[in-house]
Amino acid sequence: MQTENLLKQVAFIKEIDKLKYIQRKTKLFNSDRHENDAEHSWHLAMMTIVLAEHSDKPIDVLKVLKMVLMHDIVEIDAGDTFIYDTQKNHTNTDEELIAAKRIFGLLPKEQAEEFIAIWQEFEEGITDEAKFAKSMDRFEPLLQNVSNNGGTWAEFNVPYQKVYDKKKAIKDGSATIWEYAEDLINKSVEKGILKK
Amino acid sequence: MQTENLLKQVAFIKEIDKLKYIQRKTKLFNSDRHENDAEHSWHLAMMTIVLAEHSDKPIDVLKVLKMVLMHDIVEIDAGDTFIYDTQKNHTNTDEELIAAKRIFGLLPKEQAEEFIAIWQEFEEGITDEAKFAKSMDRFEPLLQNVSNNGGTWAEFNVPYQKVYDKKKAIKDGSATIWEYAEDLINKSVEKGILKK
Repeated sequence: MQTENLLKQVAFIKEIDKLKYIQRKTKLFNSDRHENDAEHSWHLAMMTIVLAEHSDKPIDVLKVLKMVLMHDIVEIDAGDTFIYDTQKNHTNTDEELIAAKRIFGLLPKEQAEEFIAIWQEFEEGITDEAKFAKSMDRFEPLLQNVSNNGGTWAEFNVPYQKVYDKKKAIKDGSATIWEYAEDLINKSVEKGILKK
Repeated sequence: MQTENLLKQVAFIKEIDKLKYIQRKTKLFNSDRHENDAEHSWHLAMMTIVLAEHSDKPIDVLKVLKMVLMHDIVEIDAGDTFIYDTQKNHTNTDEELIAAKRIFGLLPKEQAEEFIAIWQEFEEGITDEAKFAKSMDRFEPLLQNVSNNGGTWAEFNVPYQKVYDKKKAIKDGSATIWEYAEDLINKSVEKGILKK
């Protein structure tokens, strides 16, 4: 049974290597190089460990780490959807659910079910853990765009209000981080790297 | 105080972006593309979550995740040392300790001390958490090299015994994973992708 599980788990471990090829729109800090989903997920995990103390609610840090580490794995099949895409809404699409079932389905049954549930909890964004995980997911590209003179905001002409509406989700996880983030957004307008 | 901490933490978050530029000798699965340290750290974190059930001893999974996520951050300053390097020993070098103090030192004092301690616990490899974390660190490149017809073993003419001696550390974390790993090593000899 243990060996049978291990064989399935190794198949999953090999499969998720593909996350390293999924390119995001966002670029690394002070850089022209696109970030990939594996790098992004690692960065969110480090941010979770570092910033957990700022969560407004007590959170299970291990649960949040599981969320941020695996939140983009569905993109191996479904691809990266740009958060400011006007054609395609980045919500829990059917395509992503099919992807979750295929990829997490490589694991032993019980583990597959656990991972799908964690991914869905993240997507729904209702629990305190999901809210904090989403704060991290919104905060990293904000820092990156500011470091890159507007980054994807400038590149895709994303206006202030749209950025503000998406970033507001940070507030649901942490008032302290939101205060800092809101200030960064306002200063970006002043600097002219985000258009009002 | 909270805001003061946050400013230091953001400086750290920006600094560790550099891990995405540290190239490892090992290549991605079935690929010619080198892996970087951030991708590697993400993969070890996923492996930890997936494979924790095979640990011989009860482990604090959150602690292991912290270890694998930050174990290579010192390489931002110290660079990647190839595990089979004959000139430079990959142990807790003075250079790495200086790097740990500088990089983790960007964080608030208490957090900096916690992170340095976690990194040192990993390097020492004595606790059950450190042993399991090291198992993951040995297991991932084994899987990669097998998928790449010998990978770095072939590229740098690393003989069987040297590989075996390094990989044996997997046994300290998990008998089940070691049984699988040992079999992979033996089959690699049979296939001629690892020379005895």
